[in-house]
Amino acid sequence: MIGVGDAGRIHLNLFTMNTVGHLSPGVWRHRRDRSRRYTELDYWLGIARTAEAGLLDAVFFADVLGSYDVYRGGPEAAIAGGVQVPVNDPLQLVPAMASVTEHLGFGVTASTSFEHPFPFARRMSTLDHLTGGRVGWNVVTSYLGSGARNLGLDGQVSHDRRYDIAEEYLEVCYKLWQRSWEDDAVIEDRERGVFADPERVHPIAHRGEFFTVPGFHLSEPSPQRTPVIYQAGASSRGIAFAARHAEHVFVAAPSTAVLGRQVRAANEAALAAGRTTPPPVLNQQTVIVAGTDAEAQRRFDEYLEVASPEGALTLMSGWTGIDFAGLDPDEALAGLESDAIQSALSAFSDADPTRTWTPREIADYVRIGGDGPVLVGSAATVADALETIVEETGVAGFNLAMAVQPETLEGVVEHLVPELQRRGRFKREYAAGTLREKLGGGSARPAADHPAHAVRIDGPGPDAAEASQLSRAATD
Amino acid sequence: MIGVGDAGRIHLNLFTMNTVGHLSPGVWRHRRDRSRRYTELDYWLGIARTAEAGLLDAVFFADVLGSYDVYRGGPEAAIAGGVQVPVNDPLQLVPAMASVTEHLGFGVTASTSFEHPFPFARRMSTLDHLTGGRVGWNVVTSYLGSGARNLGLDGQVSHDRRYDIAEEYLEVCYKLWQRSWEDDAVIEDRERGVFADPERVHPIAHRGEFFTVPGFHLSEPSPQRTPVIYQAGASSRGIAFAARHAEHVFVAAPSTAVLGRQVRAANEAALAAGRTTPPPVLNQQTVIVAGTDAEAQRRFDEYLEVASPEGALTLMSGWTGIDFAGLDPDEALAGLESDAIQSALSAFSDADPTRTWTPREIADYVRIGGDGPVLVGSAATVADALETIVEETGVAGFNLAMAVQPETLEGVVEHLVPELQRRGRFKREYAAGTLREKLGGGSARPAADHPAHAVRIDGPGPDAAEASQLSRAATD
Repeated sequence: MIGVGDAGRIHLNLFTMNTVGHLSPGVWRHRRDRSRRYTELDYWLGIARTAEAGLLDAVFFADVLGSYDVYRGGPEAAIAGGVQVPVNDPLQLVPAMASVTEHLGFGVTASTSFEHPFPFARRMSTLDHLTGGRVGWNVVTSYLGSGARNLGLDGQVSHDRRYDIAEEYLEVCYKLWQRSWEDDAVIEDRERGVFADPERVHPIAHRGEFFTVPGFHLSEPSPQRTPVIYQAGASSRGIAFAARHAEHVFVAAPSTAVLGRQVRAANEAALAAGRTTPPPVLNQQTVIVAGTDAEAQRRFDEYLEVASPEGALTLMSGWTGIDFAGLDPDEALAGLESDAIQSALSAFSDADPTRTWTPREIADYVRIGGDGPVLVGSAATVADALETIVEETGVAGFNLAMAVQPETLEGVVEHLVPELQRRGRFKREYAAGTLREKLGGGSARPAADHPAHAVRIDGPGPDAAEASQLSRAATD
Repeated sequence: MIGVGDAGRIHLNLFTMNTVGHLSPGVWRHRRDRSRRYTELDYWLGIARTAEAGLLDAVFFADVLGSYDVYRGGPEAAIAGGVQVPVNDPLQLVPAMASVTEHLGFGVTASTSFEHPFPFARRMSTLDHLTGGRVGWNVVTSYLGSGARNLGLDGQVSHDRRYDIAEEYLEVCYKLWQRSWEDDAVIEDRERGVFADPERVHPIAHRGEFFTVPGFHLSEPSPQRTPVIYQAGASSRGIAFAARHAEHVFVAAPSTAVLGRQVRAANEAALAAGRTTPPPVLNQQTVIVAGTDAEAQRRFDEYLEVASPEGALTLMSGWTGIDFAGLDPDEALAGLESDAIQSALSAFSDADPTRTWTPREIADYVRIGGDGPVLVGSAATVADALETIVEETGVAGFNLAMAVQPETLEGVVEHLVPELQRRGRFKREYAAGTLREKLGGGSARPAADHPAHAVRIDGPGPDAAEASQLSRAATD
């Protein structure tokens, strides 16, 4: 089980995106920001080397297959502000970044709504092969309606329906990854000329509500078979989904109080779903670390000068579905009688139930680090704060977003990592093995309490005769 | 136009696949064959470095999203023989191979049948960005029924229908690549905080028979915008498709006579389709080159010892849809009264109309180099033969498949390339610019006579008012 043996160690990922900027809209304007180079391989190879020098667990790539077009009823603000658009495919960065690193993991966001699981499963197996088992998949069901419309879908599928599809999507993937090829299927017998034993390669014979996949997986087993499953579910359905499938849970809680509740909810849901050990929870976090508190604060003030409140509301409108441009910037949102707004802001208002938020205050908060919190200070100051958060909430670590790229990462590697190491809070070398093993999973393959481990292709589902028939249909 | 200025130079690509072996089934058994390492990045980085050392134009990746399951009515022979299965995603090899090369191009096979054009267009734009404009797309419509069934499609869509879909698929891609973002859309105005001008980013408002894509492209313009279009069409519909779209045409002709006819047919079709200069045609070719004729022949004899006739018939059955296991291995096929067999074998029988072929003879032919011809000899011998082929057929170059990997490639780079250079038949350095420019295209973008150049998003199609309405729908 991932998390065992961590001995108080904090997990740290880099959180980024194949776009100009990411979660600090407008900060691409900063004279030292290099995120404009997101289209260049060399930029990403440098990020990979720095992240591995800092012993970060993984580079975690966000992605959207759409644009933030709720704010002012169109994508203009996102395009003008460089707010997660243009945005390129993150998956292709991984093989190149893997080629210049040895241990660094890679979390790739991919939606269950837009690509069929049969070719997708091959993509992830390929990536797990090429990286030597260093890949994780951040499972998302997609929240931007423009993405669905551009695939010819008639509006976005309902939230709960997306999770029904995602459940079956994962079942198909697990069958392909875990059960189609037996471990000893590839014989590579050069004398007899037998590469693989057909008796040990099984068609999955999947016939479900959404997908029909009669045949066998096209890829032989990769080091992890199933990539490490990341999931960021905030809704009740999302929490239930993460409870079943996630090996690392990713949240974006703005305060210690909210984060503590979310960690407890995730833990309880995982236990209720039959997992023996709840998966570690990582919070989205931005840390501006420099040699001294004053230097860090000076940098943060610089970043604020170029950060865009309008970009922040563009993000916030896309995340919530509410057009913040239509609200009075200085009217407390708590006073508004919209259930949707109250729901969207619950994370903020929960942090301090007595506090009200105006759109202007929300924009100020979100413009650096998005919907996650920000810490500013020397390594000692930030390490103190992170340790307190860990102790008070039970969070296992942090997905660290960059404000100025890659300066924010460099500050983490140069200052924060050594400080956490001195405190015994961070590893001094990578563990051996695949990403799952490095994260404490004990095995390259999913643990016994994970649904990927339990998946069967001979039941529940078609019985043996039917499976044989489907197998034949797949190959006639 | 690609091809202009070549001055008698021969184009050479490496032709390979993300699998054990490729077109020489069973040769993975050879003691010097390294293709078993296809799952490792280092293997592919070595291939890339060798190909660039030899100034090859590009590494051209074949792909199938299915298995060869016609032979004996199932995939067992393909699995046992390692006949293009297991097979991984080729696209992910490219970013890593690009990171260790400067000029080498990459042709990626991808089907228009299995992924929606909206995310696919972003994948290719990302690849063109990351490689600095060194990407080509081999457009296929997919011939293996198992691929379609595993995507839940009810049997394979008819051949002509696949080309109808492919035509619209390309139209959508061209609109996204060529017309959605104007060249000067990205302003990157750090003072004003404007990354891109929304007035210069256009929703494509595509509503066709198969695809509806209202929105704008998610990627900003890449160096080539549209990747170099490769196409291998042998059917009349395929030839017509290639005539419109292909910037390099890829064929697999077994003899000079057949190749000459195919080159003429491709040229005539391109001119009939309104292209001002027909695209160069490249033939699939295997060359076994060593220091002397005797040494090359010795190697070839070694390869034949491990090459698999059954693997050859497994490939042939998949390509033609005819189960060769059901035929008498020694009965001349010309004598059989099956139209399907006659059609499938027309390439072979056309080579010499008086010759008949038995399944055994076909297996002997196909087991090294698949359905393309093989040349064996010293650099002088092979160069003589290639020059003769070029002069007699008008073919522009060759996609060189490997028998023993990477030994076959190393023989080409060590022996054949210098010999062709001495004869003035091969470049001594890469041309500047993108793949399209290196291939002689004159510009990074598609030529004026190419349909990508002519594509419009305001017509033919929705008129301006309708486009505006669709744009709004895309962003509401």
